[in-house]
Amino acid sequence: MTLAKVIVMYKESILDPQGEAVKNALLRLDHKEVKDVRMGKYFEIQLAESVDPEAEIEKMCQELLANVTMESYRYELVDEVQQ
Amino acid sequence: MTLAKVIVMYKESILDPQGEAVKNALLRLDHKEVKDVRMGKYFEIQLAESVDPEAEIEKMCQELLANVTMESYRYELVDEVQQ
Repeated sequence: MTLAKVIVMYKESILDPQGEAVKNALLRLDHKEVKDVRMGKYFEIQLAESVDPEAEIEKMCQELLANVTMESYRYELVDEVQQ
Repeated sequence: MTLAKVIVMYKESILDPQGEAVKNALLRLDHKEVKDVRMGKYFEIQLAESVDPEAEIEKMCQELLANVTMESYRYELVDEVQQ
């Protein structure tokens, strides 16, 4: 089995309203040291034995997990020892 | 400056409806190798110089970023060289 850890975030140039909202909330909670907050989506995807897990995950990101016009994605593949 | 990378996810025992929805969508897109999908939130938080950034981030998670009854969180702190 392979575990894919995928992070999807808005591209730098795109306004991140959720990140702004969290930043303002943290400042209101007196976390004065907060300079910037960006928020994204995180996926953990378990894959059965696959010929090319990286190609599979790349395809999933392109097709579903990320809106590639506004979002960028990165992922890490971890081999899981069968329990 | 310190960059905190925070991941917040539902606890294992809690049903993850978003993860289920993504899994079913991936299966419909013919990604037969997908066994399980869990979805969470990802934050990148930039902190100005702080006496104890880890304590600050821990407090932020407890106060705002995670609903600690249903969610678990983990984070990584990265020192950023001033540009």
